[in-house]
Amino acid sequence: MYFHIRIVVCDGVHLNTWLTYNVRMGKRQSVVTIGGGTGHFVLLSGLKKYDIEITAIVSMADDGGSTGVLRDEMGVLPPGDIRQCLVALSEDSEMLRNLFSYRFENGSFSGHTFGNLFLSALEKINGNFVDGVKEASKILRVRGRVLPVTEEQMHLLVVLKDGTEIEGERALDGDERISKIGVQSVSLKEKVNAYDPALKAIENSDTIIIGPGDLYGSILPNFLISEISDAVKKNNAEVLYVTNLTNKKGQTEGFGIGEYVAAIESYIGKGRINTIIANNEMPSEDATRAYEKQEGAGTVISCTDFIPGGGTKIICEPLLSHKKVNIPSSDKIKKERSFIRHDSTLLTQVVMEHISN
Amino acid sequence: MYFHIRIVVCDGVHLNTWLTYNVRMGKRQSVVTIGGGTGHFVLLSGLKKYDIEITAIVSMADDGGSTGVLRDEMGVLPPGDIRQCLVALSEDSEMLRNLFSYRFENGSFSGHTFGNLFLSALEKINGNFVDGVKEASKILRVRGRVLPVTEEQMHLLVVLKDGTEIEGERALDGDERISKIGVQSVSLKEKVNAYDPALKAIENSDTIIIGPGDLYGSILPNFLISEISDAVKKNNAEVLYVTNLTNKKGQTEGFGIGEYVAAIESYIGKGRINTIIANNEMPSEDATRAYEKQEGAGTVISCTDFIPGGGTKIICEPLLSHKKVNIPSSDKIKKERSFIRHDSTLLTQVVMEHISN
Repeated sequence: MYFHIRIVVCDGVHLNTWLTYNVRMGKRQSVVTIGGGTGHFVLLSGLKKYDIEITAIVSMADDGGSTGVLRDEMGVLPPGDIRQCLVALSEDSEMLRNLFSYRFENGSFSGHTFGNLFLSALEKINGNFVDGVKEASKILRVRGRVLPVTEEQMHLLVVLKDGTEIEGERALDGDERISKIGVQSVSLKEKVNAYDPALKAIENSDTIIIGPGDLYGSILPNFLISEISDAVKKNNAEVLYVTNLTNKKGQTEGFGIGEYVAAIESYIGKGRINTIIANNEMPSEDATRAYEKQEGAGTVISCTDFIPGGGTKIICEPLLSHKKVNIPSSDKIKKERSFIRHDSTLLTQVVMEHISN
Repeated sequence: MYFHIRIVVCDGVHLNTWLTYNVRMGKRQSVVTIGGGTGHFVLLSGLKKYDIEITAIVSMADDGGSTGVLRDEMGVLPPGDIRQCLVALSEDSEMLRNLFSYRFENGSFSGHTFGNLFLSALEKINGNFVDGVKEASKILRVRGRVLPVTEEQMHLLVVLKDGTEIEGERALDGDERISKIGVQSVSLKEKVNAYDPALKAIENSDTIIIGPGDLYGSILPNFLISEISDAVKKNNAEVLYVTNLTNKKGQTEGFGIGEYVAAIESYIGKGRINTIIANNEMPSEDATRAYEKQEGAGTVISCTDFIPGGGTKIICEPLLSHKKVNIPSSDKIKKERSFIRHDSTLLTQVVMEHISN
């Protein structure tokens, strides 16, 4: 529980808030995040500044890019999303964080991220992935925990609208049929078991934050493990859903917030999302044009078009980042990254104000 | 200057040394090492336990194995020997040191050492090699400094006894002509300039330890830079030469200590080596047989066969390691490593007793 203190000074004419302060009573809040990609990174980077217990849960279905090559060649669990979360939660020097995110540009390593090699090497030395991640967390001085949703290799099946099944999460970003036919749903090729500490983290959480992250690539793969969706369904934590800023062609094309909510709640139970946090600021015309050129028309998700039913609350705030993003020079594996992004400070302020009250 | 204190206890019959302690007066001794490979690693691992200022100087001529591939593909300076020195001098957890020495066994990274990728990535991020090495030193909590002998790419020319010139240090371990014809000398394809801090370290040193390390591959390439050999020649530091335990086929085949000393002193001046430290313990028959099978007959260097001239002193002590060495499973780049090794504690005790007196 938190007390929210504001020191307000009055000079006879103006009221000025001098200090806003949250005072914690009792144990720290446990916050579990389930997301992926840049949005999840941005959220965690902001959350680590607050006095809360963070557990980031990450799907093990990724098999594209550098991660996919390592998974194929070394037989390791996919390091990519775990690496991003570790860097986001790291309190270490900027140098070490830069190093972790460094992408080789030449030679046989081209496109590989240093941090992915780091995690894969640690997995090999330690004999298993989670001990490798624990060691990496120590080296990077990570605030909180980053847990894989399972210790087993997940193999995603992407089901298209015509019933075709395509194997591998990488198909989502690489297979032409995705944008032509469109995704209907995702499932797992083989059932996997949840990683017990991830399950326990959900069970003991005060707040579960779902998103941001690709619906089919990052969010739903976690809920395909029935123990995980059941755990979210059954406990009493506040469930927040942070919506994405943009849709993805062939995947969530034309989706409004309602479609995202319905897809997620089909796993965790209708009405289970207590609060939706969404952006209500339009990106610049330049950014929108560039994004729509890449992803097709109508890709920016609107907050105001959606009115939630039941007890679900929606918070609409301007959440866009206005920082310039450096797009590194081209390489073999890396693809273009989204340039419409959440602002880390704005997003986590809204999240924290909500869960502290 | 050091005072050497021994607490000796007599029980009426026996004299027992209870404590041997070196008390430092004034500034710490500055020790510069010039070597390479496993021997240099073993020496530095021992030296870091003493209260001295260590500067390890490393040749930039290496172009074989993982290092050679990185040099070719990424255009970086050779990380291999620097990495070994950093790990040797690291005070960090065994895990981080293991990670640095981890060699990938599968896929496109096969044979690459994690630490080499680490240094190459840091060089790219920092824009230059020495700043990368400085960052790595911080991350690994290195006691002392590891300096490249030059910031420029060195290209070694190996001159055979029939006058043939072969380019690249890697030829020493890979070219058939080396063992058939034999090495006469080495030179540099293009003149390079010494790295100024390396030069300053030599100029300000109290002791310079040359070796262990391959004569043509690790030791002499440093002295091919005339500023370096001149600096050793001119200053008043005590020069120690730690001899190798074994000869290398086609390179130092049949060499006694005298031939090594002559080769080194041809660069730093006759009589410049003040003290030679050599092993006088024969390796086990098994180890000798295995080594000679690999390298050809007559490969173990004898201490007792050599009587130095002039004022040069020779210290003969048992210096062999009796620890079992784990040979990791095979991979693309790694070659078999020497299994006749110095014992780190024994070697550095002899070195430190000598330079502390």
